[in-house]
Amino acid sequence: MTTAGPRGVAQHHGTQPEGAPSSLPVLHHPPELLLRGQDVRVAFFDVDGVLTDGGIYMVELAAADPRGATETFKRFNTLDGLGLKLLMAAGITPAIVTGRDSVALRTRLNALGIEHARFGTENKLPAANEILEQLGLGWHQAATIGDDWPDLPLLTRSALACAPPQAHIEVRASAHYVTSAAGGHGAAREFCDLLLTATGHYAALLAEYQR
Amino acid sequence: MTTAGPRGVAQHHGTQPEGAPSSLPVLHHPPELLLRGQDVRVAFFDVDGVLTDGGIYMVELAAADPRGATETFKRFNTLDGLGLKLLMAAGITPAIVTGRDSVALRTRLNALGIEHARFGTENKLPAANEILEQLGLGWHQAATIGDDWPDLPLLTRSALACAPPQAHIEVRASAHYVTSAAGGHGAAREFCDLLLTATGHYAALLAEYQR
Amino acid sequence: MTTAGPRGVAQHHGTQPEGAPSSLPVLHHPPELLLRGQDVRVAFFDVDGVLTDGGIYMVELAAADPRGATETFKRFNTLDGLGLKLLMAAGITPAIVTGRDSVALRTRLNALGIEHARFGTENKLPAANEILEQLGLGWHQAATIGDDWPDLPLLTRSALACAPPQAHIEVRASAHYVTSAAGGHGAAREFCDLLLTATGHYAALLAEYQR
Amino acid sequence: MTTAGPRGVAQHHGTQPEGAPSSLPVLHHPPELLLRGQDVRVAFFDVDGVLTDGGIYMVELAAADPRGATETFKRFNTLDGLGLKLLMAAGITPAIVTGRDSVALRTRLNALGIEHARFGTENKLPAANEILEQLGLGWHQAATIGDDWPDLPLLTRSALACAPPQAHIEVRASAHYVTSAAGGHGAAREFCDLLLTATGHYAALLAEYQR
Repeated sequence: MTTAGPRGVAQHHGTQPEGAPSSLPVLHHPPELLLRGQDVRVAFFDVDGVLTDGGIYMVELAAADPRGATETFKRFNTLDGLGLKLLMAAGITPAIVTGRDSVALRTRLNALGIEHARFGTENKLPAANEILEQLGLGWHQAATIGDDWPDLPLLTRSALACAPPQAHIEVRASAHYVTSAAGGHGAAREFCDLLLTATGHYAALLAEYQR
Repeated sequence: MTTAGPRGVAQHHGTQPEGAPSSLPVLHHPPELLLRGQDVRVAFFDVDGVLTDGGIYMVELAAADPRGATETFKRFNTLDGLGLKLLMAAGITPAIVTGRDSVALRTRLNALGIEHARFGTENKLPAANEILEQLGLGWHQAATIGDDWPDLPLLTRSALACAPPQAHIEVRASAHYVTSAAGGHGAAREFCDLLLTATGHYAALLAEYQR
Repeated sequence: MTTAGPRGVAQHHGTQPEGAPSSLPVLHHPPELLLRGQDVRVAFFDVDGVLTDGGIYMVELAAADPRGATETFKRFNTLDGLGLKLLMAAGITPAIVTGRDSVALRTRLNALGIEHARFGTENKLPAANEILEQLGLGWHQAATIGDDWPDLPLLTRSALACAPPQAHIEVRASAHYVTSAAGGHGAAREFCDLLLTATGHYAALLAEYQR
Repeated sequence: MTTAGPRGVAQHHGTQPEGAPSSLPVLHHPPELLLRGQDVRVAFFDVDGVLTDGGIYMVELAAADPRGATETFKRFNTLDGLGLKLLMAAGITPAIVTGRDSVALRTRLNALGIEHARFGTENKLPAANEILEQLGLGWHQAATIGDDWPDLPLLTRSALACAPPQAHIEVRASAHYVTSAAGGHGAAREFCDLLLTATGHYAALLAEYQR
């Protein structure tokens, strides 16, 4: 049993998407942006500031602790997790290229089933080129989301370049699309949604969840 | 001893609720929203992004640590905690249906006295139907707050559907009410307040705290 | 050596306080608010949502961990820490009355030198009355900052009632002053600043830091 | 291979920097602000609220834990990390003067290669003067970013004074520049960017990342 009538009518707060019946997606993007993404087969993700909120958490252990040092953790987001899974379901390969490395990151990527990842890459371009070669793809089939200067070589080469709103100003200037949500708060999900829409998979994937 | 005169008069920042005497609630909702909630007896809560801020925290342990792996934590909110207790005091059963599972979550739910919970549910609809059957209730007596696609089957079936502002755009489009506060920052409390008002319990519960 | 000229002139972002010479405070409050605070000798602080951001962090330990359970932490703020110290320097006693209890909280309060605190108080009014009696003070000499319904009995009795912006709507309606900064992000410091100004200590304390 | 045409054209969200070709910086500052920074050779950073979000995290350990006490952590930001490295590459010495001390902080500073740091300094002025003397520099060659009263003696003496937006109102009034990003969310990077631009190093450093 579903409640009759369009849902959007009675909304009283927040964004006001058009009152479409819930079986049709309300998300939409400008045509020129969708054109850029229509051939994308691989999506490059930076980690810190994109899949996380950019926080570097340093833990101070008690003096008596035998570990004697510090440990770090990272803050990921559930919205992004589903986005990455949907991307893979649509045949678009997510690839991670990050300048840092941590057990926390590797554990999260394993849980999400991500196979292509390069850690501790001072220079991201060779790492990304290597992944493209493995996949037999070119930059015209690549999209990238990044937030800082080391991401610029990937962003300027990609068919579709994306940045979260807290990205460095030079990175935002290089992006075709700046997400509404911040890194670690759903920015990567918006990037995935855009790619799913541009490649024509979004509506069918959504419909499976609406039954 | 109370200070004479309406409190609202001297406020200089933030929202400006009408200057009602403190013994009457200042919270109010549109009548059509209250009508939707008047028969609600069970309230379904998603966890990540609703009772938490959606953060998935991955902890990296030092190499010397015998545990050798990572541990996670979750960020809940005190405002929501009181909301869930008030809901139970009003005879509305809070029920948790979540796709994830963790000791952190179960510990928090135990502390709040929540009895109906389903963890690690890939498909939330059968889990929710099971809880409804146990309680002898139907969807016209159910309200749901959720933030992502897996919550859509519950949201579209519920008499009252609610979403936090950072929810996915398709979820917000399915909601009758989008809260002001974000998930993990009081969104669930606003949902509880709405249900308490719609079922006629809000003013009496508040009065007990105003003595 | 100081740079000549008023500092406010060249500001390009954020708030624009009047271009006063740096030796005079720029903070100011409406006279009716200062009147309310002029006799305050004790300031009651709620903890969760006031001295913290309201976050209840639940940590999941690895299965192999002998502790076998969860541990929590709290997020306090440095701005508030200095505020509490300045309050004590001005002869206003900070007092904590909280419904929860934790080693994390007690450790932080010890570090700040706070002597009057009541933990795990289901009903805050008797606890606050007890502290007032110990100090030989009455409610006309008390100020309170709180964010949820259990704080209402203290807020409505205090000469000056304060709430952070994310406080429950009924609490904000009971407050004479709603801070700009959220709980755990400087709300308590603003409350301290207001009391320091109302009691005539603010300018002298600031001057000690401007040498 | 790069995509033809200016990148700014297709942006649909967030800030809208002018559609400059990606090889030229889009960041710019008012001339009077750049003049203040042109001779800066040392940059003083406060830690809590500047390099972190001001959070003081207190961890509660389980009763069975042999450590028996609490441990703290700090939240730094990746954007700031690159800013500090770029500052050093431009020959501007970053120096830390903080009232607190922690293993977490020292570990992070070591990772960033910062050599000049003073911890637990109740009075920051002598500590900063000592660093200036070591470097053979004067206050007309110093810039400072800080957020609270103990930073005022450094801010008022520096050629360029900077504050994050959540800084205390008296500190913002003493600053020539208030950053857009909050402390721990990129405020320090904006401060670094300003100094790199004022000293003429910004464009060349950016160009190395654009290849």
